[in-house]
Amino acid sequence: MLTWARHYEHTQFISDLVAAGIVTLMLIPQSLAYALLAGLPPQAGLYASMLPLVVYAIFGSSRTLSVGPAAVTSLMTAAAIGHLAASESAAHHEAALALALLSGLILVVMGALRLGFLANYLSHPVISGFISASGLLIALSQVKHVLGISASGDTLPELLSSLWQNLPQFNGYTLVLGVSALAFLAWARSRLKPLLLGIGLGPRLADAVAKAGPVAAIASTTLAVWLWDLAERGVRVVGEVPQGLPPFALPTWNPVLWSELALPALLLGIVGFVESISVGQTLAAKRRQRIEPDQELVALGAANVAAACSGGLPVTGGFSRSVVNFDAGAQTPAAGAYTAIGIAVATLLFTPLLRYLPQAVLAATIVVAVLSLVDLGMLKRTWRYSRFDFAVVAATLVVTLVAGVEAGLIGGVGLALALHLYRSSRPHIAIVGQVPGTEHFRNVQRHPVRTSPHVLGLRVDESLYFANARYLEDRINEAVAEQPALQHVVLQCSAINDIDASALESLEAIQVRLAEAGVRLHLSEVKGPVMDRLHGTPFMQHLNGEVYLTHYQAIAKLAPESLA
Amino acid sequence: MLTWARHYEHTQFISDLVAAGIVTLMLIPQSLAYALLAGLPPQAGLYASMLPLVVYAIFGSSRTLSVGPAAVTSLMTAAAIGHLAASESAAHHEAALALALLSGLILVVMGALRLGFLANYLSHPVISGFISASGLLIALSQVKHVLGISASGDTLPELLSSLWQNLPQFNGYTLVLGVSALAFLAWARSRLKPLLLGIGLGPRLADAVAKAGPVAAIASTTLAVWLWDLAERGVRVVGEVPQGLPPFALPTWNPVLWSELALPALLLGIVGFVESISVGQTLAAKRRQRIEPDQELVALGAANVAAACSGGLPVTGGFSRSVVNFDAGAQTPAAGAYTAIGIAVATLLFTPLLRYLPQAVLAATIVVAVLSLVDLGMLKRTWRYSRFDFAVVAATLVVTLVAGVEAGLIGGVGLALALHLYRSSRPHIAIVGQVPGTEHFRNVQRHPVRTSPHVLGLRVDESLYFANARYLEDRINEAVAEQPALQHVVLQCSAINDIDASALESLEAIQVRLAEAGVRLHLSEVKGPVMDRLHGTPFMQHLNGEVYLTHYQAIAKLAPESLA
Repeated sequence: MLTWARHYEHTQFISDLVAAGIVTLMLIPQSLAYALLAGLPPQAGLYASMLPLVVYAIFGSSRTLSVGPAAVTSLMTAAAIGHLAASESAAHHEAALALALLSGLILVVMGALRLGFLANYLSHPVISGFISASGLLIALSQVKHVLGISASGDTLPELLSSLWQNLPQFNGYTLVLGVSALAFLAWARSRLKPLLLGIGLGPRLADAVAKAGPVAAIASTTLAVWLWDLAERGVRVVGEVPQGLPPFALPTWNPVLWSELALPALLLGIVGFVESISVGQTLAAKRRQRIEPDQELVALGAANVAAACSGGLPVTGGFSRSVVNFDAGAQTPAAGAYTAIGIAVATLLFTPLLRYLPQAVLAATIVVAVLSLVDLGMLKRTWRYSRFDFAVVAATLVVTLVAGVEAGLIGGVGLALALHLYRSSRPHIAIVGQVPGTEHFRNVQRHPVRTSPHVLGLRVDESLYFANARYLEDRINEAVAEQPALQHVVLQCSAINDIDASALESLEAIQVRLAEAGVRLHLSEVKGPVMDRLHGTPFMQHLNGEVYLTHYQAIAKLAPESLA
Repeated sequence: MLTWARHYEHTQFISDLVAAGIVTLMLIPQSLAYALLAGLPPQAGLYASMLPLVVYAIFGSSRTLSVGPAAVTSLMTAAAIGHLAASESAAHHEAALALALLSGLILVVMGALRLGFLANYLSHPVISGFISASGLLIALSQVKHVLGISASGDTLPELLSSLWQNLPQFNGYTLVLGVSALAFLAWARSRLKPLLLGIGLGPRLADAVAKAGPVAAIASTTLAVWLWDLAERGVRVVGEVPQGLPPFALPTWNPVLWSELALPALLLGIVGFVESISVGQTLAAKRRQRIEPDQELVALGAANVAAACSGGLPVTGGFSRSVVNFDAGAQTPAAGAYTAIGIAVATLLFTPLLRYLPQAVLAATIVVAVLSLVDLGMLKRTWRYSRFDFAVVAATLVVTLVAGVEAGLIGGVGLALALHLYRSSRPHIAIVGQVPGTEHFRNVQRHPVRTSPHVLGLRVDESLYFANARYLEDRINEAVAEQPALQHVVLQCSAINDIDASALESLEAIQVRLAEAGVRLHLSEVKGPVMDRLHGTPFMQHLNGEVYLTHYQAIAKLAPESLA
């Protein structure tokens, strides 16, 4: 805040105000919809779009990020608290507040400890698999509202079987409203803007009209429900939304509940942070601004604590709302604060208008929004690029769908780490020879290079550590066994960035073995930090060969006749 | 077995027979002692030294490894089954058999799936911390026998407080026997051999006499107990050992017990395997023989299943017994089978002699044997070599002591992996320049090298993957910001062995950022497999620079004036 508040100018104020107006209009139905998705009363969504925005404006380092309830975090909230209490009960909302508080505190602590780098362990394949699966789960979880039936479940099989069992109770009026809203929104999303452009509207206006699709759908269906008294005929509506500002209260002290929610809160916090930071960095890069990851952790954490203290639900920097904020011309985080004021005014004055809003139409807006998150094409793209990455995408996707969001995330991260460790435990070890006419040495299998029968040049393409040290032993033994005239082994250490204690023991074993076979062991291109550490170890004391600055110098000394 | 049985000769037979005789003498007290340590009836130790040895002789690839009950595995057995049933009860022994069965089956399956490499994840620091802590725990667990009191516990605090509480009940006769055995054994271990050599005995005979120390202690104290009726005065003795061969029976089907023992069985199996393979490889290397890790898994697994079916306890290839077998001249695994016959004969004929053997003296033999496992000097050595490795040793040692063997192993492996991942998430990235007069490029901070203000050469010392991709982005942004005259960035990829999907996205982001700043991105020394994969990706399609075979060629093209 300190960076922008001192130079806040009139033009920035106007830009921020306009952006805030546009985002407010968009946020009201979105907030209600995400509260519905999380299984919370509608006002929770509105409350989560006030205080957290102000708090983020104070602490955040992104100038255009817009925080509030978002699709994936609301799904994770529903999954975390779904089994704790009946949906829309007071205990249920209390659990959501505890979840927001815990994940907020976790993020603040991570920020204070500068642990932002931990988010890097959520790799791209895990995120894309997880987001696609979440999109499918969210869309499916909304089908019950479109049909006007009850259903429950956090996974694909649960949701499908629950929907199937309750299908006969569908409500015709709800179905008509929901399906027509779905059709209209899908059409508005893909076809309306080109159509408006075609009839001569300016691109900015066409975009704004097209984006207003959800508002139009909501207004017209609310009117329809009110006119024909559809709420009496079984169409579920948002109902009474309390007028007034959010209650400010610290969440109640409940250690049993908190310990149950600790793991979900951690996962929710990290996913929210990753979503938030990706959106923030994408937007900041467009205007050549910078995002401080550790500062963002603190800001997002504080926003969640604020949500917990003002009757909201877990929040994050959402993609669509931030893009709208950015496109509408927001210049500073003050735009977020103005949005909060806009929503507060709306909550004070216009909530009676939301009374007859059919839940089916809110659900339709969610379905259309989240289906754009589902990108099954990435399965094909990752398959082409790397089997390992594909395995991670596919596993995350499938586990999230059949076992839920928490299992999917943990499983995906675990598999990515396991595959990474497996890969580094079998490093690429190349026999190298001289590229004729240069001082450069490359793999004998890939390049026409020169070698000597007396000297074996080996390049290990990985730092040496416990998991791959024995593998190196085996490979050297094999290579030595294949070359009976061998007198020297030169390890080209250009890719060895570290040698841990286990690997040092293996090097000693290799040296003893080679010495017994009458072969001398040399090192070349050892990096400074590695050399510093090796200095004075028994391995260096017993080394019967030399350490050369370059591999070329080693070969020039040991087998000059082989060079060209 | 197929490799040696076809050419089995008379001289080998004689060597094996002699070795078997010596090992048998040593094994009888050791088997009884480890059964005592595991909290099992004494015959369990004897039974575990018969059938498993024969089975190992059939499947094993080591020619001199001697399997049977061992110190660390017996401690792990005691820890795993200690809380399931009262010590020395039938249910307790049944649990030990189930543990042997499960760990045996796990090892066989791992061998069939060729998962022997998983043992590499038990790094040297974890093993040395674990073995030292186990030695301390074992020694402390035997103090109760030396004092003649009851005590229980699997961790240092539990054992100490239990010993302290029961200290007043000590038995004077037991104490005298135990302490004198301890003193004699410690003296025999360190001083007897030099003494015998000093008075003119041959080294081979001196060694044999010194090794017979435990047998002498046991024989003389047993005699003392019998002569003075000390068993009537509270000295606990081994008591009745059933004469005869082991009962052959499949362990009873007990899925509840088995699922409780699954994790301990896995850990026990892996620790046993690591101990066994280290001993086997050390001995095989001395005679230039080979060990097949996956074959060893199957053999050790089968030996454990055999132990489970013949009333034994979990077994592994022990260090001391294998060394004795090797030194005594064993030539083939048949020596193990002859040892089994020797123990069977002893069990049939001589068990009445063991009746008055005081437990305190068996405990003393364990204490003296395991204290040699405790090597606290390695704390200092690892501290000097690497802080990370030291952290792993110390954490494994402390957690094993205060929270038990399972927590210690899991914690140590987890910490080692976490530190490894942390390290690879912040790779060494060096700015490189030409070493004058060569085609070699090195770190500008460590070597007097030549660079150009227009070209930045960067060498990344790690494969690029999700955990370090963003770090590379940050480092390149910083480096570019520091060099305003920059026109080219050349990434020297000699240490990049793999680029995963997340890192590819980061490279694309780097390229876009550099292009916007008017800087071209080049690659040099890209490895074959990496180049194959990059081919056809959007990154390569948009690359606005070149790919050079060597870094020297890149600089020669881009900034020839900077070379010398």
